Amino acid sequence: MTGIPGTMKAVLLSGYDGRRESMTVAEVPVPRPGPGQVLVRMDAAPVNPSDLMFIRGLYGFQKPLPAIPGFEGSGVVVAAGSGVLPRLLLGRRVACAAADPDSAGGTWGEYLAISALRCIRLHRNVELEQGANLLINPLTAWGLLEKVRRGGHGALVQTAAASAVGRMVVKLGIRFSVPTINVVRREEQVELLRREGAEHVLNSAAPEFDEKLAELCHRWAATIGFDAVAGEMSGRVLGAQPAGSTLFVYGALSMEPSRVDPAALIFERKRLEGFWLSVWFGYKSPAEQLRIAGKAQRLLGSDLKTEIRDRIELEELPDALERFAASATGGKVMVLPGRK
Amino acid sequence: MTGIPGTMKAVLLSGYDGRRESMTVAEVPVPRPGPGQVLVRMDAAPVNPSDLMFIRGLYGFQKPLPAIPGFEGSGVVVAAGSGVLPRLLLGRRVACAAADPDSAGGTWGEYLAISALRCIRLHRNVELEQGANLLINPLTAWGLLEKVRRGGHGALVQTAAASAVGRMVVKLGIRFSVPTINVVRREEQVELLRREGAEHVLNSAAPEFDEKLAELCHRWAATIGFDAVAGEMSGRVLGAQPAGSTLFVYGALSMEPSRVDPAALIFERKRLEGFWLSVWFGYKSPAEQLRIAGKAQRLLGSDLKTEIRDRIELEELPDALERFAASATGGKVMVLPGRK
Repeated sequence: MTGIPGTMKAVLLSGYDGRRESMTVAEVPVPRPGPGQVLVRMDAAPVNPSDLMFIRGLYGFQKPLPAIPGFEGSGVVVAAGSGVLPRLLLGRRVACAAADPDSAGGTWGEYLAISALRCIRLHRNVELEQGANLLINPLTAWGLLEKVRRGGHGALVQTAAASAVGRMVVKLGIRFSVPTINVVRREEQVELLRREGAEHVLNSAAPEFDEKLAELCHRWAATIGFDAVAGEMSGRVLGAQPAGSTLFVYGALSMEPSRVDPAALIFERKRLEGFWLSVWFGYKSPAEQLRIAGKAQRLLGSDLKTEIRDRIELEELPDALERFAASATGGKVMVLPGRK
Repeated sequence: MTGIPGTMKAVLLSGYDGRRESMTVAEVPVPRPGPGQVLVRMDAAPVNPSDLMFIRGLYGFQKPLPAIPGFEGSGVVVAAGSGVLPRLLLGRRVACAAADPDSAGGTWGEYLAISALRCIRLHRNVELEQGANLLINPLTAWGLLEKVRRGGHGALVQTAAASAVGRMVVKLGIRFSVPTINVVRREEQVELLRREGAEHVLNSAAPEFDEKLAELCHRWAATIGFDAVAGEMSGRVLGAQPAGSTLFVYGALSMEPSRVDPAALIFERKRLEGFWLSVWFGYKSPAEQLRIAGKAQRLLGSDLKTEIRDRIELEELPDALERFAASATGGKVMVLPGRK
């Protein structure tokens, strides 16, 4: 481990209560890669809604504390543990997903020791900053579209359509000729999506929203839907969809329980399910995972491009988190651990 | 149509607003059976929760107004329209289901003209009063148990377990060796179900209900659930079930939207669906329908026996409905249109 310092800066989480005091930036030992692991010198890592849920203890699992948050990022492999795969990645630029419930490591630090199986080598023409966003939003959007295409649905309806995932879904919909019916909550988001090519965009705050949504969902047979808002929005969308429809909840921006009309479930054969990237992707074979990640990489510069709103240093992150949580529309906030 | 009067008494619904004024008892012409239909002289008809939903406009369809409510009942076929099936039923005792959205006819009148396909000939040893209850509650309980047995679930969890359907589910569970975890809302209902052989009964008003429910659901692998209450109860039950579970909503006694935690959907692969007898039974072949109805008839005296709380005349029904709606635990209220 020549040229690698003994300690590093990292964001450190000491409790899952969502309080500012539970997060510090500390000097901690640089981890050593174990068997099958690599050591990644982090270059960039986004702040995703799933990170915010994790910090608040609302995610699907909790890592042992103290933990370094940050589920994904990119960097260069600077050391390798034993095994063929780690050695193959040495010196390479990778995207990595720190989603192991048993490991306290995360991407919001200068170095990350992680299983080589959780790293994807980046294509030559993919910038590290775009590559840092590969494994959550683009794969989520890809997974949602796969559900639509395999299920033979006429169209899809989605909430939070102006989010990073929502905009990728719109673009993949255009690419794969799947009509998308898009729900946003502000007029400027209507304009934004229209500029990006979305044909059907509805503002949930506008009058007659529910009638218009039902009309569009029936006309285009939007028998599948994706909801990142939850709360009453789940019920409004499911209510607007045709009989026999399924709504997949994949986020909970409202922080409210999903509310659905029992009559829609009973008499209209509608159902409510969840979508979790980890489950969808985890059920794939390694070969299939590589194939999908490869396809997503090729679209990182176009349909799956992440818009960057802000770039900050590790030290700024804890104080800035609240501000990012308020709106996800303006693009991603990137943490650049390598920047001094 | 010799011996059949020209007019009859019937409950008449003039609006789906649930107001007392929208229901009268009137003298109306006795209908004539059309092709494929029979005329049933009604003997008994229950007041089911689905009837109350229908009257309030909350059911899966609305019949043309004015309509005669009452979805099921029993009686004797006193006249037959053209066709083989109607003639075969002439003079027979039948159970019938007046669930045709296009027909204004119902069982809460002295006579009913109905398709012979919606009638089941009653076995010799089945009393008309028990037979009147054959086609909704026993078939619902049968349908729920079929879902459990075909899905390979370890156990089932159900709300409103002291209702007519709930108690039948308990008994069918014992018959088919399916453990049932039963949720009720009053202590006397706990005693009632225990007396009927239920092993696991929880009062949702008791302290630590949610913890105990989760413990039981996990211990017995209750990956399927049935909810007739909706509201927050849907979320509490789904929350208590193991990962990967499905909760089927089949009623909405709380009159509230089902509220479920998005995290349970996303991270625990749980889902919320509906169960409607009409859809489940309607997808069966006619032969399969007869087979199931035959099995249910044989159990009408035991597992699928309906407890009768009260017997009233047609004239008393409109004023008494509110009272019945308050609690479904004490047994069924039967309308006896034939009684003078």
